[in-house]
This record gives sequence, structure tokens and C-alpha cells, in this order.
Amino acid sequence: MTFKAAESLAEQIARHVGRQIVTGDLVEGERIQELRIAKELNVSRGSVREALLILERRHLINIYPRRGAVVAEMSAQQIKSLFEILTLLLSVLARRAADSWRQSDVEGFTSLLDHLQGLAREGDIEGFYEGSFAFFRMGYRFALNPYIEEMLEDLQPALQRSYYLALHTNKRELQEAHNFFKGIVEAILMRKGDQAALLVEDFACHLRNLVLDSLARMKQIELAWAQRSKR
Amino acid sequence: MTFKAAESLAEQIARHVGRQIVTGDLVEGERIQELRIAKELNVSRGSVREALLILERRHLINIYPRRGAVVAEMSAQQIKSLFEILTLLLSVLARRAADSWRQSDVEGFTSLLDHLQGLAREGDIEGFYEGSFAFFRMGYRFALNPYIEEMLEDLQPALQRSYYLALHTNKRELQEAHNFFKGIVEAILMRKGDQAALLVEDFACHLRNLVLDSLARMKQIELAWAQRSKR
Repeated sequence: MTFKAAESLAEQIARHVGRQIVTGDLVEGERIQELRIAKELNVSRGSVREALLILERRHLINIYPRRGAVVAEMSAQQIKSLFEILTLLLSVLARRAADSWRQSDVEGFTSLLDHLQGLAREGDIEGFYEGSFAFFRMGYRFALNPYIEEMLEDLQPALQRSYYLALHTNKRELQEAHNFFKGIVEAILMRKGDQAALLVEDFACHLRNLVLDSLARMKQIELAWAQRSKR
Repeated sequence: MTFKAAESLAEQIARHVGRQIVTGDLVEGERIQELRIAKELNVSRGSVREALLILERRHLINIYPRRGAVVAEMSAQQIKSLFEILTLLLSVLARRAADSWRQSDVEGFTSLLDHLQGLAREGDIEGFYEGSFAFFRMGYRFALNPYIEEMLEDLQPALQRSYYLALHTNKRELQEAHNFFKGIVEAILMRKGDQAALLVEDFACHLRNLVLDSLARMKQIELAWAQRSKR
């Protein structure tokens, strides 16, 4: 087996398990059993171990010396920490993008914005969710800093997981998110880095609160079910 | 084999190879051959592959689909990027430490400062180098943000690698570094977060320039040797 084959297999496994964590099929604190996954997917335990290292790097699991791999926490505190670091890195990105964009970058952003506008109008929540991350990924390279790019790349799955919680929102919410994206792009195109960074901070704060609300609601429902089953 | 055993073996291999990269035994662009390491250390290729994922996360190597694992670049641009993100994260840390330190934290910092002062006075360059990173690690937890802590942890080997380049400096340099550490701790203990953050930025800039000078000198020497061997 060549290194390449092994790497992409581990990546495939990581994506498969990662998706289950993002969508909530695997919940916080749940143990991820190496052997079970290896059997389920008919792959070697070595490949699963590699996949777990990739998932740890992407902040979706923690690997503990004795307990093994466990799905990462999804608490208010964790969400606040996540949005704190995202805001910090994305403000740098917005400022730098305002300084460094070229004519050839414009087309990609405006056509994605149009696409998002269409999805918001149709109320296509899942499509809008995908499009938001395409927008996010399109921004990376403006960091002009490979460390920041990598960190944003690695934080993306945790952001997807958080955002997924808040996905069952109404059409008006999609419109609002689209307005933020539009405002950020407009500020960047006007070379107004500070304004773009402020809008990024506003949007991150808005999204964070949305996620925190959804989390609180989810915990209430869990509690209600737990009490109900006790009766 | 349990997951734990495999993890700590991979960690040991990662530390061994990582050390060779930090000290310059393995240089930028050099291929890291999985099979050679497996034979040399008498371990499985699977464990080596896991170790390579750990080293990639620590920014010491890059893994490319076709070429395999290669020692990460060590260029002026890369060093500027590294210090940019370090400065950003460490300023957050300094501000937060100023807000949140407790009486029980004081002893650890002041005794480490005294220790560093002694090493600077003796001109113990290697000891001072180790002590600086102990200082760095002691600061992590003040981030009160697991993502920032992890990022700083993962950036540490790349910083060690950069700093190692500038290690053959004089005694006065150690004294200067010590003064920075002292100033930062004092500002934190006075709850002056902005001042602490500014000192962190100054020190990072100072260190960055020191590393950039050493890098330029090293490249000149390499060039001189290359020309000499051509004659």
C-alpha cells in the first residue's frame, strides 16, 4: 500500500465519521470505537487510527490516553470559544482581503452572492448552508498566511457542526445572513478593511447567538425527554 | 494492540523525527521516507504514518498526495506568517492573563523568571532556550479557550525550529529576552492587559527579526559553499 492510498482512505473515513458528528448522529461524549468502524467500513484499524488523528485536528473528537476517541463537547462554553477564535482569524482575513483583492477575484464572489440570494429567496436552507461554506472557503487564501489558512480549514467542521444546530431557522434568517455576506463583500470591494472586519464581527456574534439559542432549546428538549422517560 | 499503545508510539516517533527537524538535521524540502523510518526505529509503517499526521498538525512537515511527506519550508515568508499568527494569539493570551490571574499563579511565574535570570547571567543559551518554552507553555491555559490553547501547542514546534536558528546569539541577547519576559509578567500582574499585549508584540517582532537575520546569514553561507564546490 502506498502512502497516497493510505492517506486518501484515512481522509475518506474521516469524512464519513466527521459527517456523522456534524449532523448530530454521533453526539458529544460518545465513544468512537476503532474496531467497530474498521469492521463497518471494512478497512484496517491502522486507517481508522489515522482518520481519528485527522478528526482530532479538525476539532471534532478528542483522543484521550485511556478512554480513546470521544466526540468533542458541544457546550455553550465551547461554542463561545469557537466563535472567539473564528472572529479573530476572520477579521484578519477581511482586512487583508480589502487590501489585496484583484479584479480577477470579483467575479467569483459576486456570482456566489447571487447564488446565495437565490437560495435565500427560495428558502432552500440546506443549499444556503452549503453555499455559506463555499463563501467561507473562497475567503481563505486572502489570509496570505498558510498558518491562518490551515487553522480556518481545520475549524470549518466545528463551525459546520455548530451551524447545523441552528439550521432549522426561518426564511427571514437566510435573508439576514445573505445581507451580511453582501455587506462584507461590498466593504471589501470598497477597500474598507475596518468596516469589513466590523461586519464580520457582527455576523459572527449574530450566528453565535443563534447557535447558543438552538443549543439551549436542544438541551431543554433532552431534559424534557429524560424526565418523561423517568415517569 | 490497544489504541493507547499505538498513540503513544506514534507520539514517540513524531517527537524523534520532530526533534531532527527542529535542530536542522532534516532540512526544508527533504523527503521523509516512511519505510526508512519504520526500519530505522523498528516500528510498523502504520505507526510512522500516524506520526507523520501528528508532525503535519505541528506544522513541521507537509504531506502531499503524490510526493509524500516533506519537511516544511523555512523561508522569510514562512517565518513572517508564523510570527504574525503567534503575535495575534499571544496578545489575546496576555490580555486575558492580565484579567484572570489568581494569587496561586504568581509563584510559578516569578520562580521561572528567577530561573531564566540565572541562566541569562551564566550565558547558558540552551538552558535559556528550554526555559523560554517552559514560560510559553505556562501561559497557554490563560487563554481560557481550548482552540487557542491547542493552536499555540501545535505552533510551538515551528517556533522552536525558528528560534533554534537564532540560538547562537550572545549573552546580551539572553538578558534582553529576559527583560521582555519580566516586563510582560509585570504588566500582567498589574492587570495592564494592553501594555502586556504591546510588550508581547514588541518581543515577537524582536525575535522575528533575529530569526530573519539568522536565516539570511544561513542562506548566504549555503550559497558560498555551493559556489565553492562548483569551482
